[in-house]
Amino acid sequence: MDRDGLRALLDAVQAGQVDPQEAERRLAAWPSHDLGHSQLDLHRSVRCGHPEVVYGAGKTPEQLVDIARALVAAHGRLLVTRTTDEGAAALTAALPQCEWHPRARIVAVGMAAPDEGLGQVTVVCAGTSDLAVAEEAWLTARSMGARASLISDVGVAGLHRVLGKLPELREAHAIVVVAGMEGALPSVVGGLVDRPVIAVPTSVGYGAAFGGLAALLGMLNSCASGVTVVNIDNGFGAGYAAAQINRLAAPHPGP
Amino acid sequence: MDRDGLRALLDAVQAGQVDPQEAERRLAAWPSHDLGHSQLDLHRSVRCGHPEVVYGAGKTPEQLVDIARALVAAHGRLLVTRTTDEGAAALTAALPQCEWHPRARIVAVGMAAPDEGLGQVTVVCAGTSDLAVAEEAWLTARSMGARASLISDVGVAGLHRVLGKLPELREAHAIVVVAGMEGALPSVVGGLVDRPVIAVPTSVGYGAAFGGLAALLGMLNSCASGVTVVNIDNGFGAGYAAAQINRLAAPHPGP
Amino acid sequence: MDRDGLRALLDAVQAGQVDPQEAERRLAAWPSHDLGHSQLDLHRSVRCGHPEVVYGAGKTPEQLVDIARALVAAHGRLLVTRTTDEGAAALTAALPQCEWHPRARIVAVGMAAPDEGLGQVTVVCAGTSDLAVAEEAWLTARSMGARASLISDVGVAGLHRVLGKLPELREAHAIVVVAGMEGALPSVVGGLVDRPVIAVPTSVGYGAAFGGLAALLGMLNSCASGVTVVNIDNGFGAGYAAAQINRLAAPHPGP
Amino acid sequence: MDRDGLRALLDAVQAGQVDPQEAERRLAAWPSHDLGHSQLDLHRSVRCGHPEVVYGAGKTPEQLVDIARALVAAHGRLLVTRTTDEGAAALTAALPQCEWHPRARIVAVGMAAPDEGLGQVTVVCAGTSDLAVAEEAWLTARSMGARASLISDVGVAGLHRVLGKLPELREAHAIVVVAGMEGALPSVVGGLVDRPVIAVPTSVGYGAAFGGLAALLGMLNSCASGVTVVNIDNGFGAGYAAAQINRLAAPHPGP
Amino acid sequence: MDRDGLRALLDAVQAGQVDPQEAERRLAAWPSHDLGHSQLDLHRSVRCGHPEVVYGAGKTPEQLVDIARALVAAHGRLLVTRTTDEGAAALTAALPQCEWHPRARIVAVGMAAPDEGLGQVTVVCAGTSDLAVAEEAWLTARSMGARASLISDVGVAGLHRVLGKLPELREAHAIVVVAGMEGALPSVVGGLVDRPVIAVPTSVGYGAAFGGLAALLGMLNSCASGVTVVNIDNGFGAGYAAAQINRLAAPHPGP
Amino acid sequence: MDRDGLRALLDAVQAGQVDPQEAERRLAAWPSHDLGHSQLDLHRSVRCGHPEVVYGAGKTPEQLVDIARALVAAHGRLLVTRTTDEGAAALTAALPQCEWHPRARIVAVGMAAPDEGLGQVTVVCAGTSDLAVAEEAWLTARSMGARASLISDVGVAGLHRVLGKLPELREAHAIVVVAGMEGALPSVVGGLVDRPVIAVPTSVGYGAAFGGLAALLGMLNSCASGVTVVNIDNGFGAGYAAAQINRLAAPHPGP
Amino acid sequence: MDRDGLRALLDAVQAGQVDPQEAERRLAAWPSHDLGHSQLDLHRSVRCGHPEVVYGAGKTPEQLVDIARALVAAHGRLLVTRTTDEGAAALTAALPQCEWHPRARIVAVGMAAPDEGLGQVTVVCAGTSDLAVAEEAWLTARSMGARASLISDVGVAGLHRVLGKLPELREAHAIVVVAGMEGALPSVVGGLVDRPVIAVPTSVGYGAAFGGLAALLGMLNSCASGVTVVNIDNGFGAGYAAAQINRLAAPHPGP
Amino acid sequence: MDRDGLRALLDAVQAGQVDPQEAERRLAAWPSHDLGHSQLDLHRSVRCGHPEVVYGAGKTPEQLVDIARALVAAHGRLLVTRTTDEGAAALTAALPQCEWHPRARIVAVGMAAPDEGLGQVTVVCAGTSDLAVAEEAWLTARSMGARASLISDVGVAGLHRVLGKLPELREAHAIVVVAGMEGALPSVVGGLVDRPVIAVPTSVGYGAAFGGLAALLGMLNSCASGVTVVNIDNGFGAGYAAAQINRLAAPHPGP
Repeated sequence: MDRDGLRALLDAVQAGQVDPQEAERRLAAWPSHDLGHSQLDLHRSVRCGHPEVVYGAGKTPEQLVDIARALVAAHGRLLVTRTTDEGAAALTAALPQCEWHPRARIVAVGMAAPDEGLGQVTVVCAGTSDLAVAEEAWLTARSMGARASLISDVGVAGLHRVLGKLPELREAHAIVVVAGMEGALPSVVGGLVDRPVIAVPTSVGYGAAFGGLAALLGMLNSCASGVTVVNIDNGFGAGYAAAQINRLAAPHPGP
Repeated sequence: MDRDGLRALLDAVQAGQVDPQEAERRLAAWPSHDLGHSQLDLHRSVRCGHPEVVYGAGKTPEQLVDIARALVAAHGRLLVTRTTDEGAAALTAALPQCEWHPRARIVAVGMAAPDEGLGQVTVVCAGTSDLAVAEEAWLTARSMGARASLISDVGVAGLHRVLGKLPELREAHAIVVVAGMEGALPSVVGGLVDRPVIAVPTSVGYGAAFGGLAALLGMLNSCASGVTVVNIDNGFGAGYAAAQINRLAAPHPGP
Repeated sequence: MDRDGLRALLDAVQAGQVDPQEAERRLAAWPSHDLGHSQLDLHRSVRCGHPEVVYGAGKTPEQLVDIARALVAAHGRLLVTRTTDEGAAALTAALPQCEWHPRARIVAVGMAAPDEGLGQVTVVCAGTSDLAVAEEAWLTARSMGARASLISDVGVAGLHRVLGKLPELREAHAIVVVAGMEGALPSVVGGLVDRPVIAVPTSVGYGAAFGGLAALLGMLNSCASGVTVVNIDNGFGAGYAAAQINRLAAPHPGP
Repeated sequence: MDRDGLRALLDAVQAGQVDPQEAERRLAAWPSHDLGHSQLDLHRSVRCGHPEVVYGAGKTPEQLVDIARALVAAHGRLLVTRTTDEGAAALTAALPQCEWHPRARIVAVGMAAPDEGLGQVTVVCAGTSDLAVAEEAWLTARSMGARASLISDVGVAGLHRVLGKLPELREAHAIVVVAGMEGALPSVVGGLVDRPVIAVPTSVGYGAAFGGLAALLGMLNSCASGVTVVNIDNGFGAGYAAAQINRLAAPHPGP
Repeated sequence: MDRDGLRALLDAVQAGQVDPQEAERRLAAWPSHDLGHSQLDLHRSVRCGHPEVVYGAGKTPEQLVDIARALVAAHGRLLVTRTTDEGAAALTAALPQCEWHPRARIVAVGMAAPDEGLGQVTVVCAGTSDLAVAEEAWLTARSMGARASLISDVGVAGLHRVLGKLPELREAHAIVVVAGMEGALPSVVGGLVDRPVIAVPTSVGYGAAFGGLAALLGMLNSCASGVTVVNIDNGFGAGYAAAQINRLAAPHPGP
Repeated sequence: MDRDGLRALLDAVQAGQVDPQEAERRLAAWPSHDLGHSQLDLHRSVRCGHPEVVYGAGKTPEQLVDIARALVAAHGRLLVTRTTDEGAAALTAALPQCEWHPRARIVAVGMAAPDEGLGQVTVVCAGTSDLAVAEEAWLTARSMGARASLISDVGVAGLHRVLGKLPELREAHAIVVVAGMEGALPSVVGGLVDRPVIAVPTSVGYGAAFGGLAALLGMLNSCASGVTVVNIDNGFGAGYAAAQINRLAAPHPGP
Repeated sequence: MDRDGLRALLDAVQAGQVDPQEAERRLAAWPSHDLGHSQLDLHRSVRCGHPEVVYGAGKTPEQLVDIARALVAAHGRLLVTRTTDEGAAALTAALPQCEWHPRARIVAVGMAAPDEGLGQVTVVCAGTSDLAVAEEAWLTARSMGARASLISDVGVAGLHRVLGKLPELREAHAIVVVAGMEGALPSVVGGLVDRPVIAVPTSVGYGAAFGGLAALLGMLNSCASGVTVVNIDNGFGAGYAAAQINRLAAPHPGP
Repeated sequence: MDRDGLRALLDAVQAGQVDPQEAERRLAAWPSHDLGHSQLDLHRSVRCGHPEVVYGAGKTPEQLVDIARALVAAHGRLLVTRTTDEGAAALTAALPQCEWHPRARIVAVGMAAPDEGLGQVTVVCAGTSDLAVAEEAWLTARSMGARASLISDVGVAGLHRVLGKLPELREAHAIVVVAGMEGALPSVVGGLVDRPVIAVPTSVGYGAAFGGLAALLGMLNSCASGVTVVNIDNGFGAGYAAAQINRLAAPHPGP
């Protein structure tokens, strides 16, 4: 029930069409109500500006298809992250309009083409091994309506590579920087641009990389002001946050 | 040297006013050049949209005064974080226009009043023990030109407190959420609003809080989409990032 | 030997039926005695109110069948946790009265139906990925004689979902709350009800979830009073503790 | 606003005494409402069965006195944990009915005498160094209405000491077990009794005790079924949970 | 009650001097019995071959004096470890026969001279900074009746130093090796001798020494067979274990 | 070269049979000399009382056979730990006198029967899942000449089980205690006996057991005096140390 | 663009052959320029003295072949580390001059024979299980032009083995020391020689070796002066650093 | 005893001046011999090229003076690191030729002026808070005979600062890079120069810097080839290693 529904209910009480006991029963559950055994949060697009995103890991193909059908029916859009091969096969069979991006493990419906969206989100990654995570960020941002581009292999050991991309970086409303190992790229980018930088540590590396911990700590301690960080390998979260920021700025003409 | 300077130099070469050897010497160091022994990054406001912020911890009062004088002279503004009492005393003595905020340990020059800035940044914190960090975020955002407000003591163990602040939260361009202990507040806020949420874990707590580690991990693993995180107790970083986002959206009329 | 046995032995000494040397020999090992090579703790139901529960991981199917036969013979009941598929196959073949719950990996004998038990234990979990652990808690509680229900998918990013379950939660004698990722659900539930809350962190998540560590630390630092915590993925332990509490309160009429 | 208040409001709408816009305004904030700048959760005793407990650490003496006065006025009872010496001095000066327990760092109003409460909570600790934490648990339980006793210095290296206390332990509705170092006592107690055991790791120890981490991990991995755990040094949390359990069982005659 | 007491009780039952109910009552607490509020484990010397050792940290001077008087009265010997200056002052004032070793923080009564004990325990440490811990081990071994010697400053960066001590090391029944930083000395010693080596990591070092963790892990992973390890800075534990081993071998003529 | 060889060389110099330059060359490498490409430490049995033990993990079957043949030829004995199935197959094919113990992953030659050795080493483990590690300790001790016994499944949650084994434990010269999960058994055993206790944490457990870390920390912090610890799952190291101690005491008549 | 190119451009501007706007455009990206979609850092051999080394992990065989062809074409040399079997097969098929070293997982082109290089790098490892990492260091040093030798199985538990290699060690310009478990070998070597020692911890070990963490911490805390450390299992990094040092010293006649 | 001494002894044996028994006694301790109770390693300058460096922490002023006098007498040089104020006062009083550098906490005798040494070592640090550690490296290198310079405040958030120092960096034989927080500077420097880079993480930072752990992990995972790392805050170790490398290259004319 949204605020209009609330007002309508109260009007109906005043008009005698609904009695107070019934209104009390309905309001007792508000702002919570049960959507049935699946507990799908269909109100989320009202509350948070985007339909619920499905975390595919640990769900059976049958569950995924059920959820996807409900969400596509309600919103005409779908974003499933961390999909297994089996899940992707089931989804593309059941819903032929699905796009399947195997490297990023994303299944999507209703995602715009890279250059059709509004504003500009730019995703950069340090090495080619970080591409799966970077692509997850890039597809998520596009799925949320952003125009988005993806720049690969600009690690800090060859500074001229990232310096050469500065003009592109400075055009973005929000920048996602993806790096494993020591995770130094966000500090370098954050020191060069005046845009929000969202850093994504990846689990790329070995030994004392400790599955992305080194990159995570590096990014949290960045000496560049204003860098914010998401979980290790969480390309989705970074793409989502970047698209949120981009939407705030989008009424401006694209860069 | 900025791009205008570069163009001027090249024009001078073409005009024969500067010979190529001299131009080569000047360009060899570009985009790097040495600002003297203090290495102050006075170009930062061009590159990143805001003058360099001074990290007060570990600097002597004399160093702080030197740096502050140079920055105020260059920009008319100043933000010093994590100032010691001695540093603050020296700064306010040397530069009477300084404001000193002892709880947040911030010295500032040229900061607008809370409701004078543009846009809207809202800082919320879970408990009164988190106020020092929250205030650092709030003052930083104001120092960067944002209108900013501060809401305290709305932890998740009494949900009605944060639910009662929803209208205020939904008006912000960017929200900073500060919490120690289990750090759950950003997940709850992030599930209720359609705005970028920047989470700041604090070192408030004891035992298995491990100096803010529990809150940090909680925020990095938030089940709410789009929450980004800064270092433990880093109110400055969160306020800076929020103000950056706010500035992108600021041309819209304030909420 | 229990206290009655002790009294009988002492009476026999007084009566001259057992001589002091023999009594000394028997008492020297008390309260410890050896039940044979399997060391089964058949006294446990006297001491702790419930027969020994079998931890199935790391036992061969043959060992499991031997132990299960002995326990069913002694108590008419059985609870085996973390059973492998092979173990479950052997047990159900040898003891046809076994129930096998593959998601929770539990084999049980003599477990009451969900609504037949006494009192009320309620198990809630944050996401569908937490269901295996939640179901282990739910079956354990039922196996120990509690009436028990299971509520799924009420994570804090959609608060209305858990708020809508408040009436059910408030009826329970003890509540088990299962969550992975940031583990914030117990704090929210604990702030809303006046019942013991037992929190179970799960290993659901990735990256800085560190196999459940983030959720564990979050729950240990809960700002809600009175939340207690068990090991990561330890649905059994939480269900056991909840049933123990429920049994204390059970003589009261069910809620 | 409680449910009676909701019904009254709806009746007033139907009776035309309150118009729908006004009712909408009032209901929009429900179940959340703002209690003023202090955000005191005075509804907590309705929701959770006990008034809000004040965490004294990090609050000024003035803040503590303000909060204490408000809580005593509303409930006639008060429990402040982790009070500083200054805080305790200010509280006992302002509210002469305060009891001050310096070892446990607790200030309380309206706490019953040890043997006046209902039911039975028993607190045991492994060594004399654990007494401050154990006493915090003991006073918390009493403050919540439980009859409570405290047994000290029964560590597992001298097993006969804890075995000699078994009769007392078996009489409790809930047992709090406090231990530092390797934290083995809850496993031993949990294997001997049929009552809920709440384990509290303490920071007693050195070296690889890592500030209580060793005891915490030991307790989380207890081989005794049904042991639940709270944060390191969190005597308050354990006492609170034990009292909650005790209250459920209290209508039974005391042991 | 020891076994003789048990036999006497049973004889008394047979003789009709004690009735079975009374015997039952007495035996119910056995092998546990309460030694009064101080819970002193005076039976320990029977069970474990050495009187209880007092851990001085966290005890008041008054408590220490009470305990020390009781132990000296019962056994004529005393060993207090980790004594504060205040505790040592109180003990030496109350019991003039106390020796106070301030570097090792040990107070002892009845400790033999270094060359009076039986067998041979040798303590070696890597650097002079490790001496406090090494001396604690050396005094503990002597207090338990071992002849003991102490060799300092034989770290592995100057191998000739430890090689020069090989004859002394090979004469010991048990060797305690104390080292901080990387903790490599036990591996070198363990590869050169045929005697039990007990390794003690110390908190000497900085940075990635992590308070002794580096040395602890190094010793646990020693490539030399048969090295066992105690807690960081636990000179007492190592000296105790070495003395236990030495006592087993002591009937052999000293080396 | 041993000391007799040194004396012979010096005699030959004095006798003019070896000139000083040649003697210098030979002595320069002493006490180190190269045994060929395999670097087998055949002197180890002189230096440390036992031939080199082979760590089977990470060696090819061919390498294992080569090494085993050399050691059997030199010493008539062999102990290979952590052997793979392939390694064991190759060894038993090449050297038919090999015994293969698959659960402990040990291949041995020349190991005495359990009751033929000298003295007495007793190995106890907390649960049946700890048996592989316990058996490694038991076989190692036997391989080094100790009479050894193995007691299983005496965890602290059923104290009477370990109390019932006290007579056996008290007869041992050295006791190895193997436990996973919270690792409390060594504290209980160490408090009951007057013999060296060597604790072995195992990786048995899940979640916050962190692969044996919980048990390791518990054992390092044992409140029982004189417990020493080896690496996680290092049954070999514990059996080796116990046998070393046992040999020191062995000239006494067995218990 | 290198400095000659810069000078040529400026001359062209002065000569009127290039107009300032065009020069500005070209210079804006300098010292960064984009080498196409692969971002190969072909300038690296100018900047760092050695062509880019390819990290083979996570690259497809097709990507590897593309990169390898470009690098061999540009430099006539190639070094690919951490190659998969598939990658190695593709590379050796496409570029027959490739050498494939499966234990070290290295593919190389243009690597000199072991004794053909300049200077002297010596690689030693503690155990045969460390050989893969040691060989990676050895091949890397050779690939960079160093004469290099490899000494295996000289762990500190048999000191005479490493002492016997001292003459060889003292001849090297730089020494790489590879060890797992407690990682003590670099301390021993560093105390015996006057040459830079680069320590490589390996993941060899189990339990509290924590995947190489114990060795890493040990090496970082080495009591021998001047030991530097690289990441766990990073034989490449150590070989690279040693070759860099060796090259500085190489104009001296070889040892 | 060095090799000349060995030869002289053998000649004396052949000449009948020393009998074999006496020679055996002297040689038995070689290459180890005892330098008396202080165990000073006066041979170290022969073995390792530099006199023993004194670690001042944890030594009394008296011990420091004794050791300093012995080393100055033997070598005419002295380097004491991590000296306390008391230690420095005692040393400068006893040995007036001492230089005391309070920020670096170093006392030295016989250190050359910055530009008098051989070769070139360059120390750079990221921020002014890192200066104490950087100065320790700089003084250590000078103390070992290197010409050395120190560059401050060139962190990666303002890349032009480090790029402006490239000519100086490229002239060094070895470069020490000191940084706290995320520790990214060594990766940037290592990608720009062809010289050995020794990275020193500092404990500068807060929160998730974890006392230098973030910087340490970042440096160990550097994507720039050939970066080696020392312990947190270990400026001494880095300066020592850099000077060792510099000495190898020093016969070349300085840059």
